[in-house]
Amino acid sequence: MEAEFITWLRRQSQVGVIDDDAATICVAPRTFYVVTTDMLNDGVDFRLGHDEPRRIGRKALAVNLSDLAAMAARPLHAFVSLSLPRQDSLELAKELFKGILPLAKKYETGILGGDTNVWDGPLAICITAIGKKGAGGLLMRGGAFPGNLIVVSGQFGGSILGHHFDFEPRVQEAMTLQQHYELIAGMDVSDGLSLDLAKMCAASNCGAVLELDQIPISPAAHQLAAERKDGVSALDHALGDGEDFELLLAVPEDQWQRMQQEKPVDVPLTCIGRFIEEPGLWTESADGKLQSLTPRGWEHRGNE
Amino acid sequence: MEAEFITWLRRQSQVGVIDDDAATICVAPRTFYVVTTDMLNDGVDFRLGHDEPRRIGRKALAVNLSDLAAMAARPLHAFVSLSLPRQDSLELAKELFKGILPLAKKYETGILGGDTNVWDGPLAICITAIGKKGAGGLLMRGGAFPGNLIVVSGQFGGSILGHHFDFEPRVQEAMTLQQHYELIAGMDVSDGLSLDLAKMCAASNCGAVLELDQIPISPAAHQLAAERKDGVSALDHALGDGEDFELLLAVPEDQWQRMQQEKPVDVPLTCIGRFIEEPGLWTESADGKLQSLTPRGWEHRGNE
Repeated sequence: MEAEFITWLRRQSQVGVIDDDAATICVAPRTFYVVTTDMLNDGVDFRLGHDEPRRIGRKALAVNLSDLAAMAARPLHAFVSLSLPRQDSLELAKELFKGILPLAKKYETGILGGDTNVWDGPLAICITAIGKKGAGGLLMRGGAFPGNLIVVSGQFGGSILGHHFDFEPRVQEAMTLQQHYELIAGMDVSDGLSLDLAKMCAASNCGAVLELDQIPISPAAHQLAAERKDGVSALDHALGDGEDFELLLAVPEDQWQRMQQEKPVDVPLTCIGRFIEEPGLWTESADGKLQSLTPRGWEHRGNE
Repeated sequence: MEAEFITWLRRQSQVGVIDDDAATICVAPRTFYVVTTDMLNDGVDFRLGHDEPRRIGRKALAVNLSDLAAMAARPLHAFVSLSLPRQDSLELAKELFKGILPLAKKYETGILGGDTNVWDGPLAICITAIGKKGAGGLLMRGGAFPGNLIVVSGQFGGSILGHHFDFEPRVQEAMTLQQHYELIAGMDVSDGLSLDLAKMCAASNCGAVLELDQIPISPAAHQLAAERKDGVSALDHALGDGEDFELLLAVPEDQWQRMQQEKPVDVPLTCIGRFIEEPGLWTESADGKLQSLTPRGWEHRGNE
């Protein structure tokens, strides 16, 4: 639904629908801010009654901070709007903030405002976060070019087992890498590694070859595959689960060599393939032949 | 619920809960932006199925523009997040935007981003709007002082009959008045004239005397009083209904004299009383004796 809606929206005048994780606004000469907003809903992004409100609140801010990290922006401010179910609304609001506030403090993000409402519907949380271009400049989704390596932080898959709540937004890592290396393009992986890589390719007018045996698969992805026995492999989970909130970067080869030597961040970085001219996602067989890979991941669906 | 929650929130560290309609951020030397966010919910702010989606979408943006007007800020950007019920979600999203886009165009506000979701809950819309300090500077809620006159735009009461959808945010009026006159304080009336006036008094550490016979009562307020026959007078409606989205200003007497002569804006301006030292809201009887007036209006309630 969202993809079709955005296609429609682009055709309307005066709507600057962007490909990036956050919108860039020029607030003064040579001063750029980025703004991102995410709405999290009960039954979709969390389950109230099953998941602790503190983790829900933390996630609502963390996904926004991850969007700022995707642009290598430094978080500054956040605005928190709540639509609370009537039952114990005050207690719920406090618990949500007990998850929001420590994370905001950790990333020096001031909660400057918001809107608190009570209604007959389920819990919905909308956070808008504002960041500033860091010393290394902003990282955009488009611009990857053939020959760049595909570099990711962390591990992928199985986030539903807990990582989708407890992930660390890669704010520091993105700013450090952007400041000290020549990164060509970047985004965060929220909808699924292969789907988001396909988006980066589309924004960059190129394709990508994945080295499947290099993809860092999380223990949770292995656990899911082992427990569910539904034919979905751990690798499938890593390629399509989403909510990993890791960095996906286009990096020139010489920069990647330096990164491997210098180890500038604590989180593991892995090269999982390279960008190529031919559009689409591909894997390479032993004889060097490209095989098409269908991107998978999370897409918002309506009544379809 | 909201008032109690905000009291709690103020006690938490690093939360800059503000009294004003929008948060002010300094983005560069001598450059101030204001940010406001409002979440509108089905069954509270509108009734989907009863109210046209275009009017709902328009209202969601208009309340944010009114918050910017309350600060005399010039609107620049808006971010629109939707939680859509599953049924016909794409059609609903388009219709909402058919109300949002014309208003955004009228006030030169670019829709730069947002988040579109589908869930099993009712419709919720969260819009964040960003504005910039206009030529006349920002208008704040605090600072009214004894002797200032209470000046309002437009008429009050009965907004439930239609005005709460179709009101015009007083963006131009606020910027014009702030640029050409010395305004001391200001806000928009969203929760009820008497309740919002009490808030302005609290933020200014003063009180106010209302001249009840001067309050501009809307035809809708008279209509409600006549139809409902529930003992609530048209004046009561004007004092407490809320969602008038008119300007409430603290104006020095000489500035008010000039405004009356120069008629700088098309919308009627009315002086409805004056600020005094004695805290609280008051009316003055014929013999000059002050009588206490209990502020009334809309307060968000949980399960209380």
